[in-house]
Amino acid sequence: MQFKQLKTLNMSTFNWPERVTVREVGLRDGLQSIARTLPTAQKLQWIQGAYDAGIREIEVGSFVPPKLLPQLADTAELVAFAKTLTGLVVSVLVPNLKGAERAMDSGADWMLLPLSVSHSHSLANLRKVPDDVVAEIAAIVEARRARGSRIRIEVGMSTAFGCTIQGQVAVDEVLRLLKEVLALGVDRVGLADTVGYADPRQVGELFAKARTVAGDTLGCGHFHDTRGLGLANVMAALQAGETRFDACLAGIGGCPHAPGASGNVATEDLTYLMASMGIQTGIDFGKLMALRAQLAQWLAGECLHGSIAQAGLPKTLRPE
Amino acid sequence: MQFKQLKTLNMSTFNWPERVTVREVGLRDGLQSIARTLPTAQKLQWIQGAYDAGIREIEVGSFVPPKLLPQLADTAELVAFAKTLTGLVVSVLVPNLKGAERAMDSGADWMLLPLSVSHSHSLANLRKVPDDVVAEIAAIVEARRARGSRIRIEVGMSTAFGCTIQGQVAVDEVLRLLKEVLALGVDRVGLADTVGYADPRQVGELFAKARTVAGDTLGCGHFHDTRGLGLANVMAALQAGETRFDACLAGIGGCPHAPGASGNVATEDLTYLMASMGIQTGIDFGKLMALRAQLAQWLAGECLHGSIAQAGLPKTLRPE
Repeated sequence: MQFKQLKTLNMSTFNWPERVTVREVGLRDGLQSIARTLPTAQKLQWIQGAYDAGIREIEVGSFVPPKLLPQLADTAELVAFAKTLTGLVVSVLVPNLKGAERAMDSGADWMLLPLSVSHSHSLANLRKVPDDVVAEIAAIVEARRARGSRIRIEVGMSTAFGCTIQGQVAVDEVLRLLKEVLALGVDRVGLADTVGYADPRQVGELFAKARTVAGDTLGCGHFHDTRGLGLANVMAALQAGETRFDACLAGIGGCPHAPGASGNVATEDLTYLMASMGIQTGIDFGKLMALRAQLAQWLAGECLHGSIAQAGLPKTLRPE
Repeated sequence: MQFKQLKTLNMSTFNWPERVTVREVGLRDGLQSIARTLPTAQKLQWIQGAYDAGIREIEVGSFVPPKLLPQLADTAELVAFAKTLTGLVVSVLVPNLKGAERAMDSGADWMLLPLSVSHSHSLANLRKVPDDVVAEIAAIVEARRARGSRIRIEVGMSTAFGCTIQGQVAVDEVLRLLKEVLALGVDRVGLADTVGYADPRQVGELFAKARTVAGDTLGCGHFHDTRGLGLANVMAALQAGETRFDACLAGIGGCPHAPGASGNVATEDLTYLMASMGIQTGIDFGKLMALRAQLAQWLAGECLHGSIAQAGLPKTLRPE
């Protein structure tokens, strides 16, 4: 009998992580993609509910001009509340130096700076080519030094796996820009499939290459489930050593009826994936699902996503 | 800078397959889970359309008593038609010796014999404990020999990853039953997540163990997407050397409003997953999606699934 030794992967070389961090980004990436504005009171309940369910990292909003994203205009208030929750790591998205100043004023623990690897996407999104964004990041790092701020800086490499405008995004360009921002002294970098183009093979390869450049400073995988590969991509990044993943409760932010829109992987599905493999997230599934049900009421009429909410936990994972 | 060498998986030891076989099982596993009966004329169009799209393995139906599954009563007629399509491998599901005789009469190339590893599921489904099913398989192998039939026999290990009735299914029991049926001289074995309980870690581990027992005779992965892990499980089996997967066009057979029901991974999503990684399936995506649109008309009102049909191919995969 002939064995396919050469074709299989030797998983015994892989040390499965005991724990993975799920960062809730629904309040930012989810809500910014929905036209309606969720009232601040409900956002505060969302933050409290996520915290109560065991989530310890939340991206609560974005310091962009309120006229651009009125849905996120209350970010400073959300940060102030979130900082009262012991042990919660509070992050905000920041598109430029002005936003960075507001983030430092707010008391957030982390600011997330998006750097689109795709020139076309960068121009469309921030009206700057990637190298000008790198220069802005340098100015932000300098502003942090000048203020003596202890805020930490994460750069999210957007469109790292492809772009709806320009199509292919070159791996060499991802790695070049990664080196640029690492040289500036940022605290963390992540790879983001902003538009839902990534595939598991590509994810494994790019995370492996990025890790040779960034080492442990590579610390986040951000995947959208637009084409059904979100969790397969999470698995590929996990195998390449990644242990922090962004997710949106109920996978909000994308809708099949809104062309081009695409939701993040659903927090509850990501949590289930990890639990199914015996990997801890610290998240209480029952409380998370109760919060999802609450969110579904707040966002009645919006497109929600996620499989586990429909099917329920398997008998093998249910509490006795 | 500290590198996480020990935590990552060395993917360079993995030879990605050039080609993967997608076996369409929607006419059997999909339709048997839907109350309405699709007219034979439409099933024939489905078979022709799948063939025209490049699919070369189709499970066209099941030789079960028509009063149990009237939806599949025309299986013999479907086999006769499918066998007129050059190069198409035609398989049928068979639950017992009587069905096997009909399968041999029909001229099908393969018969698929389900063997539930879960005792509870086996009793509920076939009214036999697994060892009695093994005895029935032995009788079928003997009947094939006695007739001099050239039909080939595949045993699908159902509920190999867990069971909605009994919960956990022991790995040792999967391997024991695998050895039993291999000793009978069956031509192929496959592992099936009949109820959508499998996770990628478990899939990788069980496929690896099963391959040490079965070698290349292990030749199919059958996954349901009930809890959103269908394609992640396909990836895990692929990494463990599997290159044949069952799938249902439009993921039919499961519905979130029908508790306990669960659809197979969608043929078009599986095809997209492979194409995204540069793995050939021989399937023309445009023709497959046209067939899906046709099926959606035939099955108006039924729950369809699948992500790629909603999002469309990424720009990176679209023809110029």
